[in-house]
Amino acid sequence: MNTVHENRRVIVARRPSGLPVPEDFELLPAPAEGPGVAADVLYVSVDPYLRGRLSGRHVTGPIAPGDAMDSELIVRTVQDSAVGPAGTLARAFGTWQDRVHLSEDALVAVAPELDPPSLALGVVGMPGLTAFAGVRRILQPAPGETAVISSAAGPVGATVGQLCKAAGARAIGIAGSEAKRTWLVQEAGFDGCIDRHGSVRDGLRALCPDGVDMYFDNVGGDVLQAVMERLAPNARVALCGLMDQYNQDEAPPGPNPGLIIRARATVRGLIVYDHEDLRPQMEEALGGRIRDGSLVFREAVFDGLEAAPAAFCRLMAGETFGKTVVRVR
Amino acid sequence: MNTVHENRRVIVARRPSGLPVPEDFELLPAPAEGPGVAADVLYVSVDPYLRGRLSGRHVTGPIAPGDAMDSELIVRTVQDSAVGPAGTLARAFGTWQDRVHLSEDALVAVAPELDPPSLALGVVGMPGLTAFAGVRRILQPAPGETAVISSAAGPVGATVGQLCKAAGARAIGIAGSEAKRTWLVQEAGFDGCIDRHGSVRDGLRALCPDGVDMYFDNVGGDVLQAVMERLAPNARVALCGLMDQYNQDEAPPGPNPGLIIRARATVRGLIVYDHEDLRPQMEEALGGRIRDGSLVFREAVFDGLEAAPAAFCRLMAGETFGKTVVRVR
Repeated sequence: MNTVHENRRVIVARRPSGLPVPEDFELLPAPAEGPGVAADVLYVSVDPYLRGRLSGRHVTGPIAPGDAMDSELIVRTVQDSAVGPAGTLARAFGTWQDRVHLSEDALVAVAPELDPPSLALGVVGMPGLTAFAGVRRILQPAPGETAVISSAAGPVGATVGQLCKAAGARAIGIAGSEAKRTWLVQEAGFDGCIDRHGSVRDGLRALCPDGVDMYFDNVGGDVLQAVMERLAPNARVALCGLMDQYNQDEAPPGPNPGLIIRARATVRGLIVYDHEDLRPQMEEALGGRIRDGSLVFREAVFDGLEAAPAAFCRLMAGETFGKTVVRVR
Repeated sequence: MNTVHENRRVIVARRPSGLPVPEDFELLPAPAEGPGVAADVLYVSVDPYLRGRLSGRHVTGPIAPGDAMDSELIVRTVQDSAVGPAGTLARAFGTWQDRVHLSEDALVAVAPELDPPSLALGVVGMPGLTAFAGVRRILQPAPGETAVISSAAGPVGATVGQLCKAAGARAIGIAGSEAKRTWLVQEAGFDGCIDRHGSVRDGLRALCPDGVDMYFDNVGGDVLQAVMERLAPNARVALCGLMDQYNQDEAPPGPNPGLIIRARATVRGLIVYDHEDLRPQMEEALGGRIRDGSLVFREAVFDGLEAAPAAFCRLMAGETFGKTVVRVR
């Protein structure tokens, strides 16, 4: 409360066109004081859904030029509040700045044993809940079935694959770099991984000879098309992200509905906010697996609030590996 | 068995290109005798899925040039068999001909009270089972919700709408002629009906102001696109038919997957053969509703085996109204 320092925030300078560039954002002074609980920001969550908000087409609402960027944060309170004494770690949605003032009821304590605390933004946070809900409520893996996961090295994809493996299914990833594919197979236990920039169809033919029983889609576009062509009967498909079109101004068409009919597939849209009821179970299950080493994860950490625009641009270019966060302090 | 008459069958003369024409078929002599139970054909079922078989892309297998057309038939046996004494009414899959010889275990008795017996090919047959399974297992209507049904005057669509109404939901049809739309509203109790050849988007906006909770799709294409743009949260979509593309050689793309995500919709492919377990319940429920007058239906009856090609061509052009059958005798 009594630390005096310059406060800064990340503002949208202009609506990105196509792939965002750092010049789409500006770092500007922010008010030092405000209503609510003062808190120092430790981590800022950088997520693909923010691109949709910048285009004005996301369920959580737009971020327009002149607005501050906002997403989930990990903060340390600098005054006593309902969430605990000053110094308590908490997560909350807030603007990308050095110090924020947050409504008391927006703060949720972060378990102190969570190491690093940024996990509450990643595999034990929203991405973890996305993966947990998608596997539990949509994919419903059975032993011997084959799951395919796109953007497999991201925090959602890698967790989906590992949960499918834990249920006795096979997990095949799709990822855009050799380093990611190697990590997925050698560290995360995936049964194979397909080069997103190669022939996804050929990869699926080789690695999913009996078809795809489950598909967790984070990208849409050609990858979705290729997987839909190979669905096994009674396949389950979770549509979660559209990385391939977030940077486009127009929404492209999707796969022919005949592919869904032919496979008698069930295709469901997954929005994590609908599954908040699973969060306690998710925290226990995934937190436990991280502690016992049966769930591995990667983080792409960018240091300093000033690095946030670059972090977001590199995420959207597919150049980050693991959960992207900005470590503000 | 001892009736001697000329036996004829409908053969595919060539693979249809686009909309089928009667010249794609030929009526040729068929063998008078054969292995199995001899039976006179009373009705031939004429269904849109046959177009997919003619293109070689249907789950039930292709029908190639030189092959006889085949689909479900209502027959009267002319000899005693496991299904009953000579003269028993039965249904079975078989070729489009005057008299057939069928494997004994392929015959299923048709309840004698079914009037007309062609109902066993329509609202109390495969189309009825399609509707019943789609409503029960995919749409799951709740009171006050809104269902939209394309090809609404067909035996599947009209039954889906009436079952949704019976569950307390609103039913909005999409149909291609004024006569169909009038019948759907005035006779079948639909709450409204949209002209398929007009602006489906405008119609949906007017008749589904709170969005579409359930959609039963028989057509694909632009109609599917328009409805997907208007899905309400947690919508359920049954993909059952692709009337718009059966006559096309190439499968066109479908709606953008973002529409499914935004609505957190559940989209399922419906193939009736997966739901055979529901048939007894369907027969009891829909047969009962027909007897008590709470379920209405239409048939488009073409007389004589020689009329079968025209019946099929008119069905595929959207020119028949109700369940299309050929009354062979």
